[in-house]
Amino acid sequence: MEGCIFCGIINKNIPARIVHEDDEVLAFEDINAKAPVHILIIPKEHIGSLNDLPKDREPLLGQILARARAIAAERGIAKSGYRIVLNTGPDSGQEVFHIHVHLFGGRRMTWPPG
Amino acid sequence: MEGCIFCGIINKNIPARIVHEDDEVLAFEDINAKAPVHILIIPKEHIGSLNDLPKDREPLLGQILARARAIAAERGIAKSGYRIVLNTGPDSGQEVFHIHVHLFGGRRMTWPPG
Repeated sequence: MEGCIFCGIINKNIPARIVHEDDEVLAFEDINAKAPVHILIIPKEHIGSLNDLPKDREPLLGQILARARAIAAERGIAKSGYRIVLNTGPDSGQEVFHIHVHLFGGRRMTWPPG
Repeated sequence: MEGCIFCGIINKNIPARIVHEDDEVLAFEDINAKAPVHILIIPKEHIGSLNDLPKDREPLLGQILARARAIAAERGIAKSGYRIVLNTGPDSGQEVFHIHVHLFGGRRMTWPPG
């Protein structure tokens, strides 16, 4: 979608440190990392937020979380642990309205999560 | 699984404020709530963590997140916003080793998420 920074990354118009790419999903380093491992996992399809996800696309969520798990394993944090966060709407602090999952690891995460 | 507090809730041996139940998924209020809305969504099948989820059960993750979205709508926080958190392993602070997704809403969540 025009004006969407994540669509720009998908289209390679905006540079990013991409860590995974397949037909449906892209993963890249968060430029404002909040942990030693902080990666964003997004669908290539432009979907604004979890609220906007069509019901028949729900399996995409499974794919995205499975990819987060795979990346955690690749980065060597599967056993030490990792936190996955999905923000939706203003109270969550969602800033880019292209659905994205955050993967955090490499440090002890505190509670509550924000 | 014996000794698992969440299996105890599923089996109704341990009381909980249940907000949703179907054949595969249970949702209930977190007894140590960290936000006006703080609900846990779990599969009825005992799976220790995301690391332990069999590959052919990945669609279950989509089901769980879809349920979180539905509960957010029921609680009237779909538009104000909500945060979904999935902890895996020690660094994440995962305490109960039965996979569970946290749904937070009803207040502004801060960043980073822990």
